[in-house]
Amino acid sequence: MSQYQAPLNDMRFATFDVLGVDTCFARLGFTDATRDVLDAVLEEGARFTETVLAPLNAVGDRAGCTLDKATGRVTTPPGFREAYAQFVEGGWSGLTAPPEFGGQGLPHAAGIALKEMIDAANLAWGNFPLLSHGATEALLHHGEDWQRDVFLKPLVEGRWTGTMCLTEPHAGTDLGLLRTRAEPQADGSYSVTGTKIFITAGDHDMTENIVHLVLARLPDAPAGSKGISLFVVPRQRVARDGALGEPNGVRCGSLEHKMGIHGSATCVMNFDGAQGWLVGQPNKGLAAMFTMMNTARLAVGLQGLGLSDRAYQNALRYARERLQMRSASGAKHPDKAADPIIVHPDVRRMLLTCKALIEGGRAMGYHAALLVDIAHAAPNAQEREQADALLGFMTPIVKACLTEWGVECTYHALQCFGGHGYIAEHGVEQLARDARITTLYEGTTGIQALDLLGRKVLQQRGAGLKAMLGMIDALCSEQGDGGAASEFVDALREKTAQWQQLTQRIAERAASNADEVGAASYDYLMFSGYVTLAYWWARSVVASEASSRPAAFKAAKRETARFYFERILPRTLAHAAAMESGAETLTALEADAFDA
Amino acid sequence: MSQYQAPLNDMRFATFDVLGVDTCFARLGFTDATRDVLDAVLEEGARFTETVLAPLNAVGDRAGCTLDKATGRVTTPPGFREAYAQFVEGGWSGLTAPPEFGGQGLPHAAGIALKEMIDAANLAWGNFPLLSHGATEALLHHGEDWQRDVFLKPLVEGRWTGTMCLTEPHAGTDLGLLRTRAEPQADGSYSVTGTKIFITAGDHDMTENIVHLVLARLPDAPAGSKGISLFVVPRQRVARDGALGEPNGVRCGSLEHKMGIHGSATCVMNFDGAQGWLVGQPNKGLAAMFTMMNTARLAVGLQGLGLSDRAYQNALRYARERLQMRSASGAKHPDKAADPIIVHPDVRRMLLTCKALIEGGRAMGYHAALLVDIAHAAPNAQEREQADALLGFMTPIVKACLTEWGVECTYHALQCFGGHGYIAEHGVEQLARDARITTLYEGTTGIQALDLLGRKVLQQRGAGLKAMLGMIDALCSEQGDGGAASEFVDALREKTAQWQQLTQRIAERAASNADEVGAASYDYLMFSGYVTLAYWWARSVVASEASSRPAAFKAAKRETARFYFERILPRTLAHAAAMESGAETLTALEADAFDA
Repeated sequence: MSQYQAPLNDMRFATFDVLGVDTCFARLGFTDATRDVLDAVLEEGARFTETVLAPLNAVGDRAGCTLDKATGRVTTPPGFREAYAQFVEGGWSGLTAPPEFGGQGLPHAAGIALKEMIDAANLAWGNFPLLSHGATEALLHHGEDWQRDVFLKPLVEGRWTGTMCLTEPHAGTDLGLLRTRAEPQADGSYSVTGTKIFITAGDHDMTENIVHLVLARLPDAPAGSKGISLFVVPRQRVARDGALGEPNGVRCGSLEHKMGIHGSATCVMNFDGAQGWLVGQPNKGLAAMFTMMNTARLAVGLQGLGLSDRAYQNALRYARERLQMRSASGAKHPDKAADPIIVHPDVRRMLLTCKALIEGGRAMGYHAALLVDIAHAAPNAQEREQADALLGFMTPIVKACLTEWGVECTYHALQCFGGHGYIAEHGVEQLARDARITTLYEGTTGIQALDLLGRKVLQQRGAGLKAMLGMIDALCSEQGDGGAASEFVDALREKTAQWQQLTQRIAERAASNADEVGAASYDYLMFSGYVTLAYWWARSVVASEASSRPAAFKAAKRETARFYFERILPRTLAHAAAMESGAETLTALEADAFDA
Repeated sequence: MSQYQAPLNDMRFATFDVLGVDTCFARLGFTDATRDVLDAVLEEGARFTETVLAPLNAVGDRAGCTLDKATGRVTTPPGFREAYAQFVEGGWSGLTAPPEFGGQGLPHAAGIALKEMIDAANLAWGNFPLLSHGATEALLHHGEDWQRDVFLKPLVEGRWTGTMCLTEPHAGTDLGLLRTRAEPQADGSYSVTGTKIFITAGDHDMTENIVHLVLARLPDAPAGSKGISLFVVPRQRVARDGALGEPNGVRCGSLEHKMGIHGSATCVMNFDGAQGWLVGQPNKGLAAMFTMMNTARLAVGLQGLGLSDRAYQNALRYARERLQMRSASGAKHPDKAADPIIVHPDVRRMLLTCKALIEGGRAMGYHAALLVDIAHAAPNAQEREQADALLGFMTPIVKACLTEWGVECTYHALQCFGGHGYIAEHGVEQLARDARITTLYEGTTGIQALDLLGRKVLQQRGAGLKAMLGMIDALCSEQGDGGAASEFVDALREKTAQWQQLTQRIAERAASNADEVGAASYDYLMFSGYVTLAYWWARSVVASEASSRPAAFKAAKRETARFYFERILPRTLAHAAAMESGAETLTALEADAFDA
């Protein structure tokens, strides 16, 4: 079974040393979010996830969820329900929710390390409370007063959970195709009918109610994505005074059999005249849903990070214990039958790749979470706007890169185990299977890439890119002359210049051929991710040198940064060349000639 | 469920147009291996694999193998046994085996497309007959006359199957650590005792006997890898006259629960005073085992290819059917609710990556198989030696690259399905799980990389590399001036020059630091694979233009070649940069500082 120990040391480093989150919170007016409080969240979060959630990870994989077809009710794996009760009891569900609805009112970024821990400890379990956050956001920003009064408190307190019901069998990325209908009723409610698929936590046995946020069409709605409205549809009907009523006309029709996250209930949900209430304006549902989706995308990025870290921890332990062959440069442990495999350069290549992507990715992911708070709470409008633009720019990068790297890191970790990695009992193969969903749900990597290049860079004229380039430039100016990260400045300057040129070139091409955007998007995304990560590694070296941490820690940060710049950052060369080749290499072949 | 149709068109193209296998066979004296015969093998092989094996693929995944702990006997999934009977009845098991033992005497390369089809149709099933081939080879080359008489005929006829029993719990890559012992007995046999793990097809219900080829130590054996001998240990004892006797002291102790290939029995085999017979010289077992291992490595490479192709076929079908969003450059199918996703450049990027790696990989893999025949049967010694050197060089490349690309192609294919790819019923997730074993067994990618750079290039002074460079140079000279592949010549020349420089540089560094080999090996391997594939793509364009195939076929080959050169070959830039960075970036960090 794979083990998990929350990487508190590096979490603290990213939070306090690299990002100065506590100072930032003070400036933003989150007076309760002191370093002591944040430390307590880390400590208690580690205890909860290590001792309660982590041991249930393999259990959930083996047992999965089960559906009683007769009742439409889902039973979660042994222990999941009890773990959820402890989660609620510990007050975790409302950690960053507004105090007026029972939350603890901490800023968003104060919960991000906890999020990583939950995902690493038990991704499948973490999916049950996950979407309550999005549902809370949607109702908070778009709901009527009575909806907030009735739904938010139970969601924040964890007595109910939320879902996002978007996808239909024929409508995934293309929500404009969806067919679920909502008929207005005399009492002001709507009768919702249709089938939704891939509904995470669509049903379960953890709470007395479930709050579905459902996209559907009004009878007079225009076709396509401009005719979609958002509805709140609880599993048990809820009166305007909050009283629980009859079961509603919604039930789980079946559970998907999946490659991984077996403990997570992925439901087909059948709405059959279910009572729902319009949230926000008619036909503006997609915009409201995007409020939920952006938070969810950052959250899925963190899932990739968490799984990477757990896989790395286990591979590292194995590489230190497993004795095979002697080091090529002479036996390192002549007293043993063979050297531990961590002496072999190729094993180190795999471990260092994980370490570089994880620790750099942690700084990048936590920073995005901090941008959420800055965009909400910064004292001046310009700072809020800039943070919002940068957040919009970073959201697809964090989502796509951290999940692609999650697939890669779980691959390397499994590979370090050799054949043993393929065997279930070591647990690393489960992490690889679980990671495989993260590049798919909440928008595939390809969709993130289009969002980044098409919308955030080209349509929004690159405000987010400009902000990121400004941060890198500031670091280079500050570090250029004898700074702790001076050895990385030339590479950073070269890459940012290339980034700008590539952006310019693609924009020019796209002006005459719209397919150039999609043709460059994936490579643009990955290029952006690697350059951004280079920035975070340079900043990590600066932060580590400025800290009072032990010499071994500082050396590890610097050596890993060097590894990253020398061995990972050159991947940008391949991505740049692919982008340069243009759309023609992708569009020339006729669709029916792919198997000519 | 995923579908499978043998890609006969491209298999014929690789076999006849690119490689001229039939002409080569005639020159080597394989007079029976005419084009008609090879065509019949393709046609009949397609029928057998498509109709018998392919439908059992999902069955095997769901049912898996089961062990009766009381008897130590393994039951294979429903239908596997009957399919094996049809395989034997069809004469497939002895297709390329010597006629004197009941085989059909066709050359090795005559069976390679069939091998790909079997792997694509049902990898788990294919693992049962797979190792008979290696056992046959080992006994043919190292066995005593009576051993050949007794064991070979049933193996060739498929009445018995073979295994390779190498790995022990503490001894995987490092076979020098193995502990299984063999005590000489009065009758000339040996009593074999020990535990072997990861034994593919270690037990099953398909045949009346199983022939284990087992590595073990004689009582007076020197320590390490120089004290290992090879033994043949049948499940049922076999007298020198071939009569079947009592059950032998060997049984399956348990089955591993694995990430994939559930239908393949991965056994813990307990030898408890089992009667075995020495094969070859005492303490020379490792060399004899390598005879088996090299063939097995090529075979595993083909597994990666087969899985890639099946995954690609299904992704392509889905991409043509699934309607989501409009093409950015204007609706392509305005009559439909949306365009099929194959119009989107990023979906094409994933499909073309598969197509380029598969079709180029097919030429590369089939060529390696042909080298086996040339190395055995070429009329002059120099040609045999050169083929053998090139085969030795290409074996780790074929094994590692085709399996790494198998992981990559199944990744892309699954990604094309979006969230549906993660659901078991579509079958593509099984292919991704099954593919994950191929970079591990028969030597991980890291081990292949060391074999390539350490042994084949640096120790053997690069005869294989020289042969490969010679082939590329000849093509460039021939095509440089207005040839069909002239557009690719500059890139090929540039890459081969870089390949030579990198090899030289690493050799120089390795002279003073042995860790430089392991530090460069993985990137050297992948660099070599991508350059070699570029060669096969250029040759494919030449062969396609010279053929009488339809214009659409020729266009598809050329466009895919262009895609490969422009969008995949640049990956060599990243690999070259990583190699250039040297060992320091991998060895600087202390082993205990990886989680400092």
